[in-house]
Amino acid sequence: MSIADKIVAGDIRAVARLIRDIDDMVPEAREVLKDLYPSTGRAYVVGITGAPGVGKSTLVDQMVAHLRKAEKTVGVLAVDPTSPFSGGAILGDRVRMQRHSMDEGVFIRSMATRGYFGGLTQSTKSAIDVLDAMGKDYILVETVGVGQDEIDIVRSADTTLIVLIPGMGDDIQALKAGILEVGDIFVINKADREGADRTVSDIRLMIEMDEKRYENGWKPPILTAQAVFDNGIKEILDEVEKHATYLRSSTERQSGIKYEKVRNELTEMIKDRIVRDVLSDLIQSGEFEDAVQLVFQRKLDPYTACDNIVSKKLKPGDK
Amino acid sequence: MSIADKIVAGDIRAVARLIRDIDDMVPEAREVLKDLYPSTGRAYVVGITGAPGVGKSTLVDQMVAHLRKAEKTVGVLAVDPTSPFSGGAILGDRVRMQRHSMDEGVFIRSMATRGYFGGLTQSTKSAIDVLDAMGKDYILVETVGVGQDEIDIVRSADTTLIVLIPGMGDDIQALKAGILEVGDIFVINKADREGADRTVSDIRLMIEMDEKRYENGWKPPILTAQAVFDNGIKEILDEVEKHATYLRSSTERQSGIKYEKVRNELTEMIKDRIVRDVLSDLIQSGEFEDAVQLVFQRKLDPYTACDNIVSKKLKPGDK
Repeated sequence: MSIADKIVAGDIRAVARLIRDIDDMVPEAREVLKDLYPSTGRAYVVGITGAPGVGKSTLVDQMVAHLRKAEKTVGVLAVDPTSPFSGGAILGDRVRMQRHSMDEGVFIRSMATRGYFGGLTQSTKSAIDVLDAMGKDYILVETVGVGQDEIDIVRSADTTLIVLIPGMGDDIQALKAGILEVGDIFVINKADREGADRTVSDIRLMIEMDEKRYENGWKPPILTAQAVFDNGIKEILDEVEKHATYLRSSTERQSGIKYEKVRNELTEMIKDRIVRDVLSDLIQSGEFEDAVQLVFQRKLDPYTACDNIVSKKLKPGDK
Repeated sequence: MSIADKIVAGDIRAVARLIRDIDDMVPEAREVLKDLYPSTGRAYVVGITGAPGVGKSTLVDQMVAHLRKAEKTVGVLAVDPTSPFSGGAILGDRVRMQRHSMDEGVFIRSMATRGYFGGLTQSTKSAIDVLDAMGKDYILVETVGVGQDEIDIVRSADTTLIVLIPGMGDDIQALKAGILEVGDIFVINKADREGADRTVSDIRLMIEMDEKRYENGWKPPILTAQAVFDNGIKEILDEVEKHATYLRSSTERQSGIKYEKVRNELTEMIKDRIVRDVLSDLIQSGEFEDAVQLVFQRKLDPYTACDNIVSKKLKPGDK
């Protein structure tokens, strides 16, 4: 039985090993991913993102519980340095999530490694493919923050939840700048805190000011929750379902979104590959260190050093 | 007079145009940067980073005022979607910073563009070189957040300030994960707010737990400030001065740090260049869209599509 066959059959050890190999950038992992590809494209991927401390992990934990009650299988990928899965957060969180550790219908994995050449975005996307191929109905991808990496990751999701807490006035400014446009559902967690109404109305205003984007389309709902008390979770999953129905309701829309997704994924994959290949080759051959020395001694400016290297590495036709 | 000569002579219009060209990735800008390189390496670069809403812009504004009083010339680069310089923040901030707009000893510029291929880190570094070559004594680089881009940018700084506000308990967890190690000075701004003492002691604890990193070296001081009332700014600049003295006190240390900096900068520059060159070439030739189509139609998996493209673009010797 090939590794790909084992994974499609749901062999947990094979899955765990492949994801580890992806994380470690073992070249053979790529071959397995190629074999797995025909078995992908079935899972529904939900991205959950927000600043540290908004309670993403608790929310994900509760979502898993609800999905399991509905007899759905679930994969969780936590791309978050502060997540209990990758060891950043307090013990309480860690214990809370353990309740799923004995459940065979749940596969949880943290993507914590950040290689010298980046690659976390890439390895997370590959891990999504693996959980998809192993037959998980839902894949929940938890990411922290509003950086470009996170935006690239949540672009792989079918539905993206942005999690906020009350009293983040200034942070909403930051949201505007980047991640707002990728939010399909907004969740105000810890909604018992002072200022929840204000946060809801701030986001509503922000969405309404951006009316053009949403006309004839999906207008992101704003939900409140208290994940720690299991309040509002059912409503969130109902909205995820509605968003899924919305996506499926138009073949044109669905294939447009899918096309963009393929385009983004291929762009990121090519970026990642050429950077890794060129740099590792340069480092192994010693060329890189030679160039660093010359610039360090001020015998060469870095711009010229870079030009020299690039023209040596890229085939003609590229400038 | 060449463009480079004009810039070294302090011609503000030439500087502004070159930075705009860098932002727009005009190829000729690289040639000017090569010419300018011998005139760089004199300015002292201070990075100021922190989450949105901690008051970085106000702090920078006050630092500029103090440095000007000491008859130092100052360049400011704001890499921040929420910064008043790039138009994200409230009008009050914008007005506040205007007091330096008539001062010829101050050059302020926002780096707001984010090209399709990234490149903000790269263009910010080039802009630092330009302000350095034009003869600014200090260059203050303001960045937001804790993403990888920000870390790459502050790595160019001689001294890095991490700005926090009281009551960011959870965020300190996130700091741990990434940006802590690049902080040379910690500033708790808005120190009149409840919980300032707690934040100071949390950070102190964090630094002390990481004792190994700091033995025989610089141990980051933790300062409190109320930038809006000009409280604590002098003390911050005194610590910047102390850190500068510390860096200069050992030739070995100084050249080690400088070497690492050259190494990082060259890595980033090469990454940026090859990605941009390969992708723009692929897009122009139509090869990229062909590959996207094949993957979209599921006639090809993305991993193989990527392999094909990479082997066409990289010279043999790279895998």
